Amino acid sequence: MSSSGKLRVGFIGLGIMGQPMAGHILAAGHPLTVFNRTRARTAGLAERGATVADSPAGVAARAEVIVTMVTDSPDVEQVVAGADGLLEAIRPGAVVVDMSTIAPEVERRLDARLRERGAALVDAPVSGGDVGARNATLAIMAGGETAAFEKARPILETMGASITHCGPVGSGQVAKLCNQILVSVTLLGVCEALAFARANGIDPKTMIRAVEKGAAGSWQLSNLGPRILNGDFDPGFMVDLMQKDLRLVLEAAGLTHAALPASALVQQLFASAQAHGQGREGTQSLAKVVDRLCRPA
Amino acid sequence: MSSSGKLRVGFIGLGIMGQPMAGHILAAGHPLTVFNRTRARTAGLAERGATVADSPAGVAARAEVIVTMVTDSPDVEQVVAGADGLLEAIRPGAVVVDMSTIAPEVERRLDARLRERGAALVDAPVSGGDVGARNATLAIMAGGETAAFEKARPILETMGASITHCGPVGSGQVAKLCNQILVSVTLLGVCEALAFARANGIDPKTMIRAVEKGAAGSWQLSNLGPRILNGDFDPGFMVDLMQKDLRLVLEAAGLTHAALPASALVQQLFASAQAHGQGREGTQSLAKVVDRLCRPA
Repeated sequence: MSSSGKLRVGFIGLGIMGQPMAGHILAAGHPLTVFNRTRARTAGLAERGATVADSPAGVAARAEVIVTMVTDSPDVEQVVAGADGLLEAIRPGAVVVDMSTIAPEVERRLDARLRERGAALVDAPVSGGDVGARNATLAIMAGGETAAFEKARPILETMGASITHCGPVGSGQVAKLCNQILVSVTLLGVCEALAFARANGIDPKTMIRAVEKGAAGSWQLSNLGPRILNGDFDPGFMVDLMQKDLRLVLEAAGLTHAALPASALVQQLFASAQAHGQGREGTQSLAKVVDRLCRPA
Repeated sequence: MSSSGKLRVGFIGLGIMGQPMAGHILAAGHPLTVFNRTRARTAGLAERGATVADSPAGVAARAEVIVTMVTDSPDVEQVVAGADGLLEAIRPGAVVVDMSTIAPEVERRLDARLRERGAALVDAPVSGGDVGARNATLAIMAGGETAAFEKARPILETMGASITHCGPVGSGQVAKLCNQILVSVTLLGVCEALAFARANGIDPKTMIRAVEKGAAGSWQLSNLGPRILNGDFDPGFMVDLMQKDLRLVLEAAGLTHAALPASALVQQLFASAQAHGQGREGTQSLAKVVDRLCRPA
C-alpha cells in the first residue's frame, strides 16, 4: 500500500456491472489499471485517469489488488491462467478478487495456482444487479483466507453496502448460489400463487396486499409480483444469467450429492422461458411459463 | 343489532384457534352462544357468560352473526347443512362467517343454500396461527357480498389485525390458498439453500445473514431458517394441516385447469415428512425431508 493509504488496483471486465464498479474504486482515489477484451469500453475510465493495459498480465504487473468481473468459469480461468493471464505477472502478496459468479471449485483451483506465486484469491460475488453496481449498494459475499480478505476489504467497501466474509475460498460463491436458489424458488411460488388467483377469479393485487405482511411475505412477492401484474418484463436480472447460475447450482449440487428438486424444477421452467425467446427478459417472465401451463385466460 | 351496537353472535368450533377467538368476541361485549362437539371445551366461555347450545341449529336460533372455525370442508358442510345444522334454524338476514380453511367451491354451494333462507355466507380464513388467535393479530382474508361482509366486520375486527375483502364468496379461501402456496414453496427454497450450504461446507447462519436483506429475503428464511438450524421443529403450523391445505390447492387447481408443479412437488415432499412420522411437527421439518435426499452429513 502507498503512504497515502491507497492501493494500486486492477480491474478486468468492464461490462454493465464492472464499468460502474471500477468507477467507484477510481472515485475513492485508488490508482487504477484496467483491461477489457473490447478495448473501447475502457475509454470513459481512461479519461478519468485510469491506465489501460493490453492484457491481464499487464494489469497484474501494476496492481496489488486485482478485481475481475466477467461472466462464467471459463472466462475467469482465461483471465487468471490463460495466455497473458494474471499468473504470468502476478506479484507476491497480491490479491485477486473475483466478483464474477462462477463455480466454487474453480475458485479453489485458481487460488491454489495463485498461492504457488505468493498471491491469493478472494471470491466475492455480488447481488443487487446493475442498480446496486451504479449506486455502490451491492451485497458482497466473500470467501478467502482472512489476511487476503482484509487486504481486499477497502476496495470492496467502495462498491458494496454490505460485505459478508462467508468462509474460505469458494464460500462467497456458495453463498451467492444459495441466494440464487432462494430467489428462483421463491419467485416460482409467486408465479404459481398469481396463476392460482387468476384461475380462481380473484384480483391478484388484492391477494398480494392480503398476504405480503405475513408468513407468505418475500422480496420477490412485493417487488416482482406487481411488475408481473403490470406486464413489465424488463430486466432486473436476465433469465439467461439466472440459467447460468442455476447450472452452477446443479453442477455444485451434483459434485456434493445434494438433490435439489425445486431448484431443478425452476431451472427446467426457465429453460422453457428461453425456448420461448424470453432469455433476455427479467426473471419475472417465469410467470409467462407458469401461465402457459394453465388454461388460457 | 341491539340498541347497544352489540350483535348477537354464535361461535361453533372451539379448538386451539376457536377458543381464544370466541373469547375476543365475548370480551368485546357481544352476547355469545357457543357450540362444540366436545362439550367440555365450552366450559371456560360459559363461565365468562356465554350461552351453550346443544347443536348448530340451537346457535342459529339465537344469533345474527355465526362464526364457524372447524377443520375441513366436510366439517363445515355438516355444521351448516347436516342434521340439526344452521340451515334448520337460521334467521333471515343472518350471516355465517366461516373462518375455517376449506374448498372455495364448498363455500359457494353453502352460500347458495343459505340465500334460499334469506341469510348469507362470508368466508374468512385466517393466517397467523394460534399465536395470532390468542393475540387477536390474525390476518383475515374475506370473501362475500359487501353487505354481508360489512355486517360481519365488527366481529372480525375483534379477532384480526388486518382484514382484506378479497371479492365474492370463496375469494377469502382462494387468497388463503395463495398464502399457503407462497409459504410452502418459499419454505422449500429455504430448505434447499440450507442443504446446499451444508453440502458445500459453509455456515448456513452466515449465509442467511449475507442474503436475507436482499432479493432472496423472505419471512420463511428469516423466521424458520434459524429454527431449522437450531433443530427446533415444534409447530408453528403443523405439517398435517399444511397437507390438508395443499390438497385444497391442488383440488381447486384441478377444477380450474391450473398446473402448479412446485406446489405439487412440495405437497409430495410434505407427504414424505408424514411418512417419516413428522405430521405433527412444524412445517419447517420439511428441511429433514430435503436433508434425507442429500448425502448424509
